[in-house]
Amino acid sequence: MHFAAVLPLQSGAQIRDYALSFETYGRLNADKSNTVLICHALNASHHVAGVYVGQDKSEGWWDNMIGPGKPLDTDKFFVIGVNNLGSCFGSTGPMHVNPDTGRIYGADFPVVTVEDWVNAQARLLDALGIETLAAVMGGSLGGMQALSWTLQYPQRVRHAVVVASAPNLTAENIAFNEVARRAIVTDPDFHGGHFYDHGVIPKRGLRIARMIGHITYLSDDVMNEKFGRQLRSALGQKASFDAGPSQGETTPSGGSAVRAATSVGVYLYSTQDVEFQIESYLRHQGDKFAEYFDANTYLLITRALDYFDPARDHGGDLSVALARATSKFLLVSFTTDWRFAPKRSREIVKALLDNRRDVSYAEIDAPHGHDAFLLDDPRYLNLVRSYFEGIFQEVAA
Amino acid sequence: MHFAAVLPLQSGAQIRDYALSFETYGRLNADKSNTVLICHALNASHHVAGVYVGQDKSEGWWDNMIGPGKPLDTDKFFVIGVNNLGSCFGSTGPMHVNPDTGRIYGADFPVVTVEDWVNAQARLLDALGIETLAAVMGGSLGGMQALSWTLQYPQRVRHAVVVASAPNLTAENIAFNEVARRAIVTDPDFHGGHFYDHGVIPKRGLRIARMIGHITYLSDDVMNEKFGRQLRSALGQKASFDAGPSQGETTPSGGSAVRAATSVGVYLYSTQDVEFQIESYLRHQGDKFAEYFDANTYLLITRALDYFDPARDHGGDLSVALARATSKFLLVSFTTDWRFAPKRSREIVKALLDNRRDVSYAEIDAPHGHDAFLLDDPRYLNLVRSYFEGIFQEVAA
Repeated sequence: MHFAAVLPLQSGAQIRDYALSFETYGRLNADKSNTVLICHALNASHHVAGVYVGQDKSEGWWDNMIGPGKPLDTDKFFVIGVNNLGSCFGSTGPMHVNPDTGRIYGADFPVVTVEDWVNAQARLLDALGIETLAAVMGGSLGGMQALSWTLQYPQRVRHAVVVASAPNLTAENIAFNEVARRAIVTDPDFHGGHFYDHGVIPKRGLRIARMIGHITYLSDDVMNEKFGRQLRSALGQKASFDAGPSQGETTPSGGSAVRAATSVGVYLYSTQDVEFQIESYLRHQGDKFAEYFDANTYLLITRALDYFDPARDHGGDLSVALARATSKFLLVSFTTDWRFAPKRSREIVKALLDNRRDVSYAEIDAPHGHDAFLLDDPRYLNLVRSYFEGIFQEVAA
Repeated sequence: MHFAAVLPLQSGAQIRDYALSFETYGRLNADKSNTVLICHALNASHHVAGVYVGQDKSEGWWDNMIGPGKPLDTDKFFVIGVNNLGSCFGSTGPMHVNPDTGRIYGADFPVVTVEDWVNAQARLLDALGIETLAAVMGGSLGGMQALSWTLQYPQRVRHAVVVASAPNLTAENIAFNEVARRAIVTDPDFHGGHFYDHGVIPKRGLRIARMIGHITYLSDDVMNEKFGRQLRSALGQKASFDAGPSQGETTPSGGSAVRAATSVGVYLYSTQDVEFQIESYLRHQGDKFAEYFDANTYLLITRALDYFDPARDHGGDLSVALARATSKFLLVSFTTDWRFAPKRSREIVKALLDNRRDVSYAEIDAPHGHDAFLLDDPRYLNLVRSYFEGIFQEVAA
C-alpha cells in the first residue's frame, strides 16, 4: 500500500511517498473486531504464515504459530503481517529511490524507531478501515513494537502478546549490535552505505554480523547439544566410523560438555579451514544471509533496537512509562534466552502490575535460547492458543 | 633464549631455530625448589610483573598478583614469565623469518597447541637448569597450560594454580573465536596471512575481533554498571547537567537496567556515529588492539584454545585423562564469568577428585566476568596468597 502523505519520524526527519508491504490471513468479521497485527523482528517480513502457490518451501516465518487451526487461528482471526519501513522485503527501504533526490536512499534513509514503525502500522490500519486490534503480537523486536502499540495507541489495542522481549536493550545487547554494525560499515564494499552505486555488496560485513547474531540467538546448552566439539572431519569420515556415534546428528541433552569431547575425527591443525561443525554452521548462516539481506537495513533495524526505551522520557521509571497502557497483556519468556532474558520480561510484568494492569506471564523452560520464540515448544504454543481462545470469546461476545 | 634444536609439534610439523622471550623475578633458592612458572593468556606476554626502568606505565599484566610482598611473593619465589611460541611480543612468531625459506612465516607459521607451548616451556626450564616447579600458574588459556603441565610433566610440578579456566572450549566459545578469525581472514588487508609483504595490517578485522572478545570478557551486570545505556552526548553535556547523575562514572550495582535508562543526553539518530558509551569503549579497545597485536598470532592463539581438550584421547572422559596428574591443585572461578563459567572449573575439580587428588577450589562471587582473574578482588588475592604461603612452607621445609 502506497502512502503519499508525510510521516513525521521521531528523529525530526520525515518520509513521504512510501509503501508498506503487508499480507492478510483469515477474514475480517462484520464488526471489525477480530484483527491481530503481527510485528516482525530483525530479519523477518510481512510473510508470517502460509506458503505461496507453487513454492513449497515458502512457509511464513511464524507458520507454526499462525494459520487455520493453529494457536493464532486464522479461521477465527483476521491476521495482518506488515513489513516495516527500512526493511528489505518489500516496504520502502534504503534500496529504494528517495523522492526528494531521485537517487537511491542508501545510507541516507532516515533512522526509524519502534515508535515510527508503530505509527506507520497505525496508518495502514486506518487505510484498511480497522480502528481496533483484538491483539498486537510480536517476538523480540516485534515484542517491543507490540508493547509500544499499547503506549502510542492504547485505545486501539485490546490485547498485547509480547514474546521474548525487553523494555530496552542492555549494554551487552547494544555491544553485540555495535560490533555487527562495525563489521558492515568497515567492509570496504560498504562505501559509506552507497554501495548500490558501486555494484557491490558488503558481504564480508554481513556475514560477520549474522554469525555474531546467531551465537546470541542460541543458548550455550543447545549449541553444545547440536554441535559440541564435533569435527567436520568426523562427519566426512562417517562411512568409516559406522560403529561410532552418529556424528552430525543432534545428540540428546545432558552431560554435554563431557559428551561433546567424545566426537571422533582428526584435527586438521589449520587456523583458516573449517575444523569444528559449529564453524561450518555459522559460516553457512553468514553466507546465506549475505545473499539476501540489505546492509543498510541491518544498521537501521539494530539501531531501532538500541533506541527503544519507553522509560527514557519518564526518568527511567518503567512503571510510570507503562501507566498509559490500558490493554491486557500476555508476556512470554524462555529460560535459556540470554539475549532477552526472562528478567527483562519480568521488568515489564512488574511495571504493568504496578499499574494494576491485567497481565499473564509465562516463563517457558526451553533449551533453545532466544530462538525458542520461533520453535515448536508445545507448552508455549498451547499457552498462546489458550490466550487467543480467550480473546476470541471476548470479541465474539 | 635461542633454541637451535627441532621442537616437534603436535600437528606433526616442527619448528627449529626459535627463541623464547622470558623474564624472571626474585631469586632461585639453593636447592632450586622455589620456581613458579606463569603462563599467559591471549594477549599477554612474558612481562608479568614490575615496571621497566624509566617507563612508569609499563606494569606487568599480573603486577597486582606478583611482586615483592604480593600474593605470589617474589621475595620468596623465583618467578618466570615466558612468552609463547607464535606470539607477537618477542618469542618467535609469524612476523619472524622462517629459517627453512628465508621468508617471513606469516600464515605459514605452524599451528601450535597448548601442549606444544608446555613442551617449549619445559625446554626453557631445562636450559635454566630447573627440574621441578614449585608451582605453575595461569588464568584462562594460561590455566589450560598449567593444567597441561600436570599431565605432560607430572613429576616436574608440585602445584598447579588454574584460574578462570576450562577443560576445553564449548561450542559457543569456539563460535566466538571463529567469528573473530573470520573478521580477520576476510579483511582484504589480510592477504591470506602474508600482509607483511604488502606493507599493510588487517586492522579492520583485528578491531572487530577485539570488540567481540571484550564483550565476552565482561559480565552483563558489569557492562550495565559501567556503561548501561549512557549516551556519549550525555557525557559531552556533563557541565550543563551538574544536578543530574554523574555520567561516565561507574555507578553502584543493583537495579542496573532501570537506572541505566535514566541517563540524560539526546539521541543523535545515527546508525554509524557513536551514540552509546559502550560503543565508544568497544571502538577504543578495538583501535588500541589493532595497533599492537599481530593478526596471525590472533588466529594461532584462538586455535590453541579451540584445540585444547585433554579428555579427547580418553574417549571424552576427563577423569581418565587427569589420572596422570600427581600435583596438588588450586582452582579458582568467578561467578559471573560466562566465557569460562564456574561449572567448567567444577568439571576439572570433579575429575581430580575422582582420582583422589589434593584439590582446593574457590568460586569467587565477583561481578566482573572473565576479566575478574586480572582484577583486585581481595578474597581472590588473599586466597592465592594463602595458597602460596602453604607452598612456601613445603619448599622451605
